[in-house]
Amino acid sequence: MTRYKITLLPEEVVAEAEAGESLVEVASRVSRHINASCGGEGVCGRCRVELKAGQLDDPDGPGAFLSEDEYRRGLRLACRCRVQGDATIFIPPESRADASVFALALAEAEVTVDRLEPMCRNLTLQLPPPSAGDNLGDYDRLQHQLAADYNLVNPVMDLATLREMPEALRAADFAAQVTLFEDPVRPGQAHLLAVRPPQPSRPLYALAVDIGTTTVWARLVNLTTGENGPSHGDLNSQISFGEDVISRIVFAGKGDGAARLQERVVANINNLIDLIEKDLPGAREHIAMVVMAGNTTMSHLFAGVNPRHIRLAPYVPAAADWPTLKAADLGLNLKPPVPILIYPSVSSYVGGDIVAGVLASEMYKRPELTLFIDIGTNGEIVVGNQDWMTCAACSAGPAFEGGGVKFGMRAAPGAINQFYFDQQTRKHHLAVIGPGPEAARPIGICGSGLINIVAELFLAGVLDPQGKLAPQAAPGLVRPSEDGQEYLLCPAAETGLERDIVLTEIDVENLIRAKGAMYSGYQTLLEGVGLTMADLEKVIIGGGFGKSINLKNAITVGLLPELPADKFAYIGNSSLTGATLAALSGELWQKAGEIKRNMTNFELSETPGYMDYYMASQFLPHTRSDLFPETLAEAARLRLARKDTPWA
Amino acid sequence: MTRYKITLLPEEVVAEAEAGESLVEVASRVSRHINASCGGEGVCGRCRVELKAGQLDDPDGPGAFLSEDEYRRGLRLACRCRVQGDATIFIPPESRADASVFALALAEAEVTVDRLEPMCRNLTLQLPPPSAGDNLGDYDRLQHQLAADYNLVNPVMDLATLREMPEALRAADFAAQVTLFEDPVRPGQAHLLAVRPPQPSRPLYALAVDIGTTTVWARLVNLTTGENGPSHGDLNSQISFGEDVISRIVFAGKGDGAARLQERVVANINNLIDLIEKDLPGAREHIAMVVMAGNTTMSHLFAGVNPRHIRLAPYVPAAADWPTLKAADLGLNLKPPVPILIYPSVSSYVGGDIVAGVLASEMYKRPELTLFIDIGTNGEIVVGNQDWMTCAACSAGPAFEGGGVKFGMRAAPGAINQFYFDQQTRKHHLAVIGPGPEAARPIGICGSGLINIVAELFLAGVLDPQGKLAPQAAPGLVRPSEDGQEYLLCPAAETGLERDIVLTEIDVENLIRAKGAMYSGYQTLLEGVGLTMADLEKVIIGGGFGKSINLKNAITVGLLPELPADKFAYIGNSSLTGATLAALSGELWQKAGEIKRNMTNFELSETPGYMDYYMASQFLPHTRSDLFPETLAEAARLRLARKDTPWA
Repeated sequence: MTRYKITLLPEEVVAEAEAGESLVEVASRVSRHINASCGGEGVCGRCRVELKAGQLDDPDGPGAFLSEDEYRRGLRLACRCRVQGDATIFIPPESRADASVFALALAEAEVTVDRLEPMCRNLTLQLPPPSAGDNLGDYDRLQHQLAADYNLVNPVMDLATLREMPEALRAADFAAQVTLFEDPVRPGQAHLLAVRPPQPSRPLYALAVDIGTTTVWARLVNLTTGENGPSHGDLNSQISFGEDVISRIVFAGKGDGAARLQERVVANINNLIDLIEKDLPGAREHIAMVVMAGNTTMSHLFAGVNPRHIRLAPYVPAAADWPTLKAADLGLNLKPPVPILIYPSVSSYVGGDIVAGVLASEMYKRPELTLFIDIGTNGEIVVGNQDWMTCAACSAGPAFEGGGVKFGMRAAPGAINQFYFDQQTRKHHLAVIGPGPEAARPIGICGSGLINIVAELFLAGVLDPQGKLAPQAAPGLVRPSEDGQEYLLCPAAETGLERDIVLTEIDVENLIRAKGAMYSGYQTLLEGVGLTMADLEKVIIGGGFGKSINLKNAITVGLLPELPADKFAYIGNSSLTGATLAALSGELWQKAGEIKRNMTNFELSETPGYMDYYMASQFLPHTRSDLFPETLAEAARLRLARKDTPWA
Repeated sequence: MTRYKITLLPEEVVAEAEAGESLVEVASRVSRHINASCGGEGVCGRCRVELKAGQLDDPDGPGAFLSEDEYRRGLRLACRCRVQGDATIFIPPESRADASVFALALAEAEVTVDRLEPMCRNLTLQLPPPSAGDNLGDYDRLQHQLAADYNLVNPVMDLATLREMPEALRAADFAAQVTLFEDPVRPGQAHLLAVRPPQPSRPLYALAVDIGTTTVWARLVNLTTGENGPSHGDLNSQISFGEDVISRIVFAGKGDGAARLQERVVANINNLIDLIEKDLPGAREHIAMVVMAGNTTMSHLFAGVNPRHIRLAPYVPAAADWPTLKAADLGLNLKPPVPILIYPSVSSYVGGDIVAGVLASEMYKRPELTLFIDIGTNGEIVVGNQDWMTCAACSAGPAFEGGGVKFGMRAAPGAINQFYFDQQTRKHHLAVIGPGPEAARPIGICGSGLINIVAELFLAGVLDPQGKLAPQAAPGLVRPSEDGQEYLLCPAAETGLERDIVLTEIDVENLIRAKGAMYSGYQTLLEGVGLTMADLEKVIIGGGFGKSINLKNAITVGLLPELPADKFAYIGNSSLTGATLAALSGELWQKAGEIKRNMTNFELSETPGYMDYYMASQFLPHTRSDLFPETLAEAARLRLARKDTPWA
């Protein structure tokens, strides 16, 4: 078959491709990820690219997202274009899913285990060497000694280990070191992962993995010392097949989609292992187990199990608990018998990442009434303490991750993330995530930026509690547009685009819907146990989004409950931390199972009261002023200072 | 790389080959097996072929096995020749390892189990379909139901099964049939091999496999009815890499030899499965387990475990007991999670085939003192009854399989297998194994033929008790040769060769060594428990060689003890029968483990007395006349009738 050359600008990366291949997929092969938020359905318009030379097969023509003029100028939706010859394509910044932000260090949560008792151990044995009078086979001999010395009956031996055993035993005259894994699912059932001559100082590692819809993280965990080794993160390369879990599930349901998504995320992890190996040469061969935490869909896609029933009523996952898998089953570039533990999920939308996060938060062993949240398109909420826990998933919509927002984008270079409105000059200052220490030119707004902008504009009186812009409050900045008013954040000349970057009233509406969905979720769970917001003693925020959030602004828009700052804690990538903890302690892994089993799951959409709470939350910060007294007091103070008329 | 064409005569089969490839291997790829008895070491001279056209790389030249003249005429040793261009090769009948004899039906032993209780079962379940109020994952739901209905806790599920489960459960509204395997090694540990909609009449099969050094057999076993399904046999295609276990072990030790031998025998079995599938379409997908029996080396090579320590002191196998493997581990063309049970061995030279044979013989549950033997290059001997058993392996040498015999060959078309010496005319009649019902022209002598010839010639006075030929006893037939005398079996013109087929005194010596090794083995084992030949109540012969043996002649040469004919039984391929029995009953599989554990293994070479017995056996039938009174009486009677002088 003829192979064509697809040149990708601006980097001039060349990808080889065959006729009929999807442009998004071709690009992703050379690590150029084009936004394809809708999973290639052609319904989001986020994957605009420019055809500079050559030809593409695009049977649908301009469609709803491109004008005739734009189409003439070469603009295309990448997800609908297929290769039919050599071509040169420019991927504009706003269509690019940029991975460079993930090179930043991960905010490390403090990991502590009371007792280091990993499920893997290295054991040393001295076998009686065989003789004419003692002709027991090597395998039988090893089993006898394990039974005699460690009371291990009939451990499972993988064929790969069996094949290496005879020479390994003879290398040091039948002194041996074995790596043992005790399957937590089957107490008393040990697996022999390796046999080798004794190496007393040999390290023993686990790999903790967090697979998020957007990012994948892997961390080396030293099972001998309990210390964290190097960790690395990367964009989840499944992103080329859909930005959120729903579009991934749709993609997985088509043809060999599930297998392709599985290969992608495994390639991601293999790449992270390579980076760890670069930091610590030889680390790979000492990795004896993997603990993976992810949301329910990511867990399915990691295992290559089609997640389609997650989005079909009654929304049941193929697996909430998982059997112990092996590296070889999944294609992980580790020793074939290395066991893979997948964190259990509570339900289709409260996944292993949340169970891991609850473990990391330690709320399950503290008396304080705690709210644990992971903010995102699919937000998760847990309420409880050492005695009980309830949880819910909450379809916040994509606003926190840049979706449904005219200039929305993920937290990547070029995203406006900080915003300050000067009450005196009635002008704003903004800050942009840079590729390095210096600021970049803005190309969009990330989720935390959106919260900061809306909070500041609200306090400045530019946005009213309904989320409407007031032209008189910021003359020259608020202006009419196709869809109501818009606020000029950055004129075209100062951007990295060729257009003004603006905030629209529709953007604000979307944020209000998203934060309202979360907030009314907290209320519903609390009400379910007869409590209210005021009873909360602690709020723990986990997950990637929490990292960049401004606490005061998040309260101002009504995303977080109004509580004293010292009641809040951010614990970083709590999913990765939970995976790390379970790797360090079999007891904590068992605890994770208990957390999963004991957590009561609420389907918010079917819980009476949720919709009422939700309707009441569609306000800045909320319709119920008693819930946000200080925020409203500050707004009133500022309003007074400005001599504005009070809100209706 | 250039690919050359190697044309193989007489069939004109063309094999593609690359420069440097071994001729033996190239031929075996197109199922033309050239004898390479020594495993390609160039030291047996059994692989003579004729180069008819083209060229071969043969750096060693004529060597010890070919004269200059033969070399000039194009004769070559195939094992030393490598491809260096197109070539046409004639494989003469005597160098061919012919598989056609195995198309004959297997002598079926009667298989009976008291109770049909296979380790695999199909179970039917009705799961409560999930609902909004019951969102248990599919995997968890299935586990709950298995625990509730069948008290099965935490069965192991393979990833392949997990992947097919969600759709399988929904196909019949959460009614399901599962195939379950209960691992005999781990009581209480079940494996879920498949999940599907209920199919009440669905068959459930096992595959019983016997891997012999020379032949491989597979039989379909119906686990629902207990009946035998189709069975097929084939030449073990490892034979291209060495005819006996020692040469296979040597080959396995070179480079990727073990992996190549493993692939070969797995290809054999896959081919047999294809034949079974042809007999009974659809059978393959209903095969839920495999039970394999073979000698210790074959078991290692089946698993791809290097057997090298079997032939290095103190002769210890890598495994005598085996972990349960999976079809996917070994490359068997069955469903990936299908469990593979490998029969346990007693020692390096008393293998799983013997344990299976003892199970099939039922001697382990009978009070009679029984001798169980499997005659071959490596002969195995078991003595005992329901209370105790001892066993030994015995290096008989290759005479029974045609090795070390000038015109020796395996029992294949063209082999002289029957021989009758007419006392009146002093002439003989012989019969040859035919490719079909008609007789072929002789090309050699098989093991049972050799026994028949030696026995008849001994009784006819043509051979004396020392194995020397008496020229006066058969004038014109006994004649001098390079190595003592030889006996003309068939003049060149009547053969399928271009040479006279003869029996030499060296051939007779080799047979006497071989039968003496076996006989002195029986004596040694009996003596070890204070018994003698006269105490034997039953002699059971298993294995392929026993099938064609003439009982009287085998006693006459001293291979079998002189006992009344009704004490002997031939039970066919007892290894395959044992594999079948274990497939039908988990209890019998456990019994096999007990047999293995309870059998006392003797190393004959290190057992005092064996060498004395051996020396005393180097006679026809034996130096001790009290052991063979009737045989000697018959010989004396015939001698008297001939008016011969008595032997010295």
